[in-house]
Amino acid sequence: MTDDLKFLNLAAELSRRGMENLTGGPFGAVIVKEAKVIGEGWNEVTSDFDPTAHGEVNAIRHACKALKTYSLQGATIYSSCEPCPMCLGAIYWARLDRLVFANTRHDAAAIGFDDDWIYLEVPKPLADRILPTFHMPNEAAKAVFTEWMSLPKKTPY
Amino acid sequence: MTDDLKFLNLAAELSRRGMENLTGGPFGAVIVKEAKVIGEGWNEVTSDFDPTAHGEVNAIRHACKALKTYSLQGATIYSSCEPCPMCLGAIYWARLDRLVFANTRHDAAAIGFDDDWIYLEVPKPLADRILPTFHMPNEAAKAVFTEWMSLPKKTPY
Repeated sequence: MTDDLKFLNLAAELSRRGMENLTGGPFGAVIVKEAKVIGEGWNEVTSDFDPTAHGEVNAIRHACKALKTYSLQGATIYSSCEPCPMCLGAIYWARLDRLVFANTRHDAAAIGFDDDWIYLEVPKPLADRILPTFHMPNEAAKAVFTEWMSLPKKTPY
Repeated sequence: MTDDLKFLNLAAELSRRGMENLTGGPFGAVIVKEAKVIGEGWNEVTSDFDPTAHGEVNAIRHACKALKTYSLQGATIYSSCEPCPMCLGAIYWARLDRLVFANTRHDAAAIGFDDDWIYLEVPKPLADRILPTFHMPNEAAKAVFTEWMSLPKKTPY
């Protein structure tokens, strides 16, 4: 069995764990670096009262906390399902090297978890989005950005 | 002062708090329902070892935990800066009604927080993304989806 198959099976096992414990939707993810599991996650949206607690986001949070880092460079994320745009964004921010997934967004839609519409929303101009969105330039917010530039002690990421 | 200006000023104040306490980038967000603040957040990526701990995601988590819900329907999110795709996805999953933001993604890029490239990645076909991505259909993952459909006790969201 290849490592990819082994770790994808583990992601599937975690998706089953979430489903059986009724923590949320049937989604699991695992993060692997140098052939070692460094983070596991499954969907906990409903049990944890957290709409961001998807399998991939949870796996990223757990791996980063465990390693005291906010970069997972050099690691692969295995997900039982194609990540939604939120999770894909999280994967980019976590600097993961590689993504392997099993079920597709269309498989997810077929069991009641449609996120294709969010994929369609993200690239739209603000005015065309379903979400009513207002850009209101604000002096206080702008001033913080200006100060950030000259802040002596800061951690870029 | 309008409510929008008042709450956007608060989001800016939270972005300053994060910056001054060196918890992460200079970003803050607040969630408001029926003219009451129900959640606050600021960027804690570096202090919390969590690449998903953006201001908006944190505000959503806090509001949902406080109200023991995973839906913020009827609420508005105010952010000191235009949300990145991860946060925009979180806003859709949280079912927020409205988004008001101050600084733009281009203002953010100018102080070292470029997320426009992630906006460009999300709508791309898998094979065209910077992130090496592999779709590997998996029997165990598929079986969990099939079982989900006939699961008697489940919480749709």
